[in-house]
Amino acid sequence: MPLIDLRSDTVTRPTPPMLAAMQAAAVGDDVYEEDPTVRELETSLAARFGMAAGLFCPSGTMTNQLAIMAHCAPVSEVICEASAHVYLWEVGGIMHHARASVALLPGERGRLTASQIAGAIRPTGNVHYPTTRLVCLENTHNRGGGSCYQWADLVEIAAVAKQHGLALHLDGARIFNALVATGQRSEDYGTLFDSISVCLSKGLGAPVGSVLLGSQEFINGCKRLRKLFGGGWRQAGYLAAAGLFALENNVARLADDHRRAAQLAEALRPLPYVAEILAPETNLVIFRLDESHLTVADCLSRLEAQGIKASGFGGSWVRFVTHLDVTDDMLARVIAALPELAGAGRPA
Amino acid sequence: MPLIDLRSDTVTRPTPPMLAAMQAAAVGDDVYEEDPTVRELETSLAARFGMAAGLFCPSGTMTNQLAIMAHCAPVSEVICEASAHVYLWEVGGIMHHARASVALLPGERGRLTASQIAGAIRPTGNVHYPTTRLVCLENTHNRGGGSCYQWADLVEIAAVAKQHGLALHLDGARIFNALVATGQRSEDYGTLFDSISVCLSKGLGAPVGSVLLGSQEFINGCKRLRKLFGGGWRQAGYLAAAGLFALENNVARLADDHRRAAQLAEALRPLPYVAEILAPETNLVIFRLDESHLTVADCLSRLEAQGIKASGFGGSWVRFVTHLDVTDDMLARVIAALPELAGAGRPA
Amino acid sequence: MPLIDLRSDTVTRPTPPMLAAMQAAAVGDDVYEEDPTVRELETSLAARFGMAAGLFCPSGTMTNQLAIMAHCAPVSEVICEASAHVYLWEVGGIMHHARASVALLPGERGRLTASQIAGAIRPTGNVHYPTTRLVCLENTHNRGGGSCYQWADLVEIAAVAKQHGLALHLDGARIFNALVATGQRSEDYGTLFDSISVCLSKGLGAPVGSVLLGSQEFINGCKRLRKLFGGGWRQAGYLAAAGLFALENNVARLADDHRRAAQLAEALRPLPYVAEILAPETNLVIFRLDESHLTVADCLSRLEAQGIKASGFGGSWVRFVTHLDVTDDMLARVIAALPELAGAGRPA
Amino acid sequence: MPLIDLRSDTVTRPTPPMLAAMQAAAVGDDVYEEDPTVRELETSLAARFGMAAGLFCPSGTMTNQLAIMAHCAPVSEVICEASAHVYLWEVGGIMHHARASVALLPGERGRLTASQIAGAIRPTGNVHYPTTRLVCLENTHNRGGGSCYQWADLVEIAAVAKQHGLALHLDGARIFNALVATGQRSEDYGTLFDSISVCLSKGLGAPVGSVLLGSQEFINGCKRLRKLFGGGWRQAGYLAAAGLFALENNVARLADDHRRAAQLAEALRPLPYVAEILAPETNLVIFRLDESHLTVADCLSRLEAQGIKASGFGGSWVRFVTHLDVTDDMLARVIAALPELAGAGRPA
Repeated sequence: MPLIDLRSDTVTRPTPPMLAAMQAAAVGDDVYEEDPTVRELETSLAARFGMAAGLFCPSGTMTNQLAIMAHCAPVSEVICEASAHVYLWEVGGIMHHARASVALLPGERGRLTASQIAGAIRPTGNVHYPTTRLVCLENTHNRGGGSCYQWADLVEIAAVAKQHGLALHLDGARIFNALVATGQRSEDYGTLFDSISVCLSKGLGAPVGSVLLGSQEFINGCKRLRKLFGGGWRQAGYLAAAGLFALENNVARLADDHRRAAQLAEALRPLPYVAEILAPETNLVIFRLDESHLTVADCLSRLEAQGIKASGFGGSWVRFVTHLDVTDDMLARVIAALPELAGAGRPA
Repeated sequence: MPLIDLRSDTVTRPTPPMLAAMQAAAVGDDVYEEDPTVRELETSLAARFGMAAGLFCPSGTMTNQLAIMAHCAPVSEVICEASAHVYLWEVGGIMHHARASVALLPGERGRLTASQIAGAIRPTGNVHYPTTRLVCLENTHNRGGGSCYQWADLVEIAAVAKQHGLALHLDGARIFNALVATGQRSEDYGTLFDSISVCLSKGLGAPVGSVLLGSQEFINGCKRLRKLFGGGWRQAGYLAAAGLFALENNVARLADDHRRAAQLAEALRPLPYVAEILAPETNLVIFRLDESHLTVADCLSRLEAQGIKASGFGGSWVRFVTHLDVTDDMLARVIAALPELAGAGRPA
Repeated sequence: MPLIDLRSDTVTRPTPPMLAAMQAAAVGDDVYEEDPTVRELETSLAARFGMAAGLFCPSGTMTNQLAIMAHCAPVSEVICEASAHVYLWEVGGIMHHARASVALLPGERGRLTASQIAGAIRPTGNVHYPTTRLVCLENTHNRGGGSCYQWADLVEIAAVAKQHGLALHLDGARIFNALVATGQRSEDYGTLFDSISVCLSKGLGAPVGSVLLGSQEFINGCKRLRKLFGGGWRQAGYLAAAGLFALENNVARLADDHRRAAQLAEALRPLPYVAEILAPETNLVIFRLDESHLTVADCLSRLEAQGIKASGFGGSWVRFVTHLDVTDDMLARVIAALPELAGAGRPA
Repeated sequence: MPLIDLRSDTVTRPTPPMLAAMQAAAVGDDVYEEDPTVRELETSLAARFGMAAGLFCPSGTMTNQLAIMAHCAPVSEVICEASAHVYLWEVGGIMHHARASVALLPGERGRLTASQIAGAIRPTGNVHYPTTRLVCLENTHNRGGGSCYQWADLVEIAAVAKQHGLALHLDGARIFNALVATGQRSEDYGTLFDSISVCLSKGLGAPVGSVLLGSQEFINGCKRLRKLFGGGWRQAGYLAAAGLFALENNVARLADDHRRAAQLAEALRPLPYVAEILAPETNLVIFRLDESHLTVADCLSRLEAQGIKASGFGGSWVRFVTHLDVTDDMLARVIAALPELAGAGRPA
């Protein structure tokens, strides 16, 4: 009975055709800018998002942090949501790399509004304050349960950023989930954002890598920062080939992950130990336990006993993630297991 | 008619006896550690707070930031109140100098509780997180309206810090106001805190300087950091003499400032344009205007027209600060001016 | 006629058996520490160098900079050779990441001596100086023309470092060339160094990656720094498999690269346009042109016209690098081309 | 018998008239930009050097480091002389604050040439390198023995900087010594340099402070950085008054210090224990001992036994500094003491 791993969409392993694409890749030394497959990935993904240039990096943390550092001068402040990945799970990179302050705004399921952002911009000319230089959005928003921005809200936010001379960066770790769920067009994103980080190793199923997108000049600058961070790699075309395969084959199918997440939520809703569910908008199902019925520790260990892995998500919250390696059969197994988790009695 | 400056207690000018003390000071090159008056200030103030050693610096921002940097290793996180001076008004120094993350907790008038702090400590062994290393408190708390900590609460917080191996720093920009208001003993502070920044140029009335207090080893390390920050000064004994004079002569009289702040609050309370007052605990009076009656801009300009300066404090808030250069006569003038501020009609 | 690329040993492409090993690799999410091939690479390479633990990273710049940052506290100084890769070609990473000063010592072909290092250690207790914390060696030394350290010299240097409480890091970008050339034992290196960076994508021929070696505690700390730098990758086992294959198959054959480098130097020695050659000790041939006979630009373009790539190496210097993708036939073609480069007459 | 302190010109103490000027100063809160004496110092000194604006700071390390940080963007390199004060004695501030690399050039007694500087500028567009952004000169040069730049050389250097878009900063810790010694005009300096740090507490005899000079926009930016560094002080006018007094009264008299330095050198020249003297150009006398006759430790302790303090200056070097508090009588005492220092016999 195969393990069902719902901890994250990062755990996927390449399928045989993806592996074949990797093996067939033409490669070269990417530090010399001579890896054709890397170049194809960067160029095609940039075009797909209406951007001029791309930079293939080992992780989304690197693409995000390179962008943040490139957008900030010394003594800057970054506006982001209080539970944004760039602030919460990137080891304090904003503070470490850019040495920038953070203006942390509470979002509605991770979503900020244009007026919130406008209200957080520092006045200029006061020696006590850093200078606001950058707004970071996350779409879909991880901590917000895979929530998506409405296009009109993004347009408004971009207008505020532009009006105040702020750069606008998108952490698009799961941007394809947002595109598939909302029907928004990737090409339009390049009209709003100064930089976008697109992850290939989450829902898309590639083994390694994220691509940073932006103007040619911006990407040239980030290429040097990537070298500084140790992200200048050599024959990375094998990994780029997996990314190209994923972009061709694994985008539309994200709708299946979304459908399965909805099914999981449906199955959770009536259970007595479930206190609250963030209604899934994409492939994340985040729910809060009534720990008088079932503790997080018990929930995870009883799932594990049935070959199902999930993540505690802070406090009484648990996260399920659907992805390429979770089939309908597996989903049925999970749904069947859920009602029994709390056991007959209450936890001691 | 002399100007009445209620903007801050930093605006005080030395009295003739303080000036005489400055002129009489024995001085030497403090980088060679040969200024006897600086040495006396550092030693005596350290003893007064139950600490081993002191370091005289040009500002409280320097003493705070040296301490924060000295307590943090790379990839650290600092726990502080969301409106703490060290986070809000020190130009992002925590992020810039220590490159540390901040865990920003909402305080009750700037006061944190031990359980809030305990809940904000990062789990160890997770590569996504920085390491919590430092808790910063501010007593009295500026943004909190000069609010004071109860001793029992400080003891509890210190216990949490100790239990988790965290350093505990006190931003004591107005610590003497807290001591005078609560009757706490300065000597006891050294038993709870790893470092204390004491400001001489606020309520105490000295022209320049703050003293950082801590263990001998800690202060030795900070002395090098002070040099790195450009705070290594030469014949600073003239300023230290003013500090010593202030410590001898201007502490007990802070009670007068507190009384006057209370009188101001009393005078404000019945006024129709005052929506809310943070009940003064020391020398700060922070109140919120009902801007349908009186805008902040009108309030400040009409006061100024009568020779009274005050500070806008964000949003609809205004701050009055009582200090050494504000006499009872001046106070009477302010109190007389207040009722007329809103004018006959509403603002346009 | 295939291109002959002598620019660097980083340009090699995997052979079919290496590619097969990559495709066959078992992989998992390395951020969860669940990639078995990565684990095997880290563990086996650590053991090979007498170290406790390893960390697989995308580049040697990352392994070097992680180590340097981990060894340094704020306000540190690093001792290294004036033309060391860590100082010269890592984008100022020592200064940027560790914010450390550098004491740059002139080496004999890149080699430092114990007494040079001892003389560069800063006195303690002087507030004007940073604290010396780390010595970085490079073996073989790139700028020094692939020069190797004698074992006795390393032992002496390690003794000085130990005596003064300094950490000792080895930039082992080409450490296997040194081992093969000198007959030194890799296991012994772990007794001298606190950390070693071993590159897999130079002479060994793997496409991507370096491994940082050190104590378990050191590597645990560096794992978090790797995440901070954006080096936390997912299914990196494909690349690790190439590294494991290289370690098994491509080490002993480095002797061929060394022989070919010696042959190249022999061929260069009598040529009138060659002013000076750094006698090759491993796989690098660095020589200085007499630019009155042949300029660097002409040298490189005339080689290129014959399908041979080489690197200008600053001033009048040119570098040839032998590696896995340079065969004896190719070597013969290069040697045949050399005498004709300067042409009949002198350059205009 | 008064102590004769030749260690540094930083050890001077204010004379009674300077003290009187301090006490008479009008002061205000300089963070609010309301200290009239500080303003007068900044404005008048800027005008004196042909600059638009000034910023009064607690030390020359602060003025230098603020300027360096302000001129550098992330991933920069600073060109300076290998023994420049900004590199050697400012605690690694270039690396720490600006996180910049250093290109350390060997100067002739600390003086760089335009062609040296031109040769050290990094090529653009190479991801391995930081970007050269700043050249720092030091005039007079401390480690070079108080050496002065010729005007024509400064003009040439400024032209190279301008041509390559580099900022040019002057560490003018002892710029007035250079002006008095060479007859150069301070007003002309503003035409060559983007920023100048002028120290008031060395030869000029003020107790504390340096002034950073530059364009209005540059100084506005540095004012925020000064706050970040903790250099935002309050009623600093007392110290500024001492600076103003010094600028009016203590500049021309530097010629006396220079004459005395020359007399000291004359007295040292024939002594058998003196191996080498850097011919004094201003007020520094740096000489090397033949330690077979007299060790540095013995030299300093025997001088001290006669009430004379001097500084060891690294290796076998000793430094004497003449200044405001060294009279002709004192000089005679020193000169009388010198011949006896080596004693009858050689040191054990």
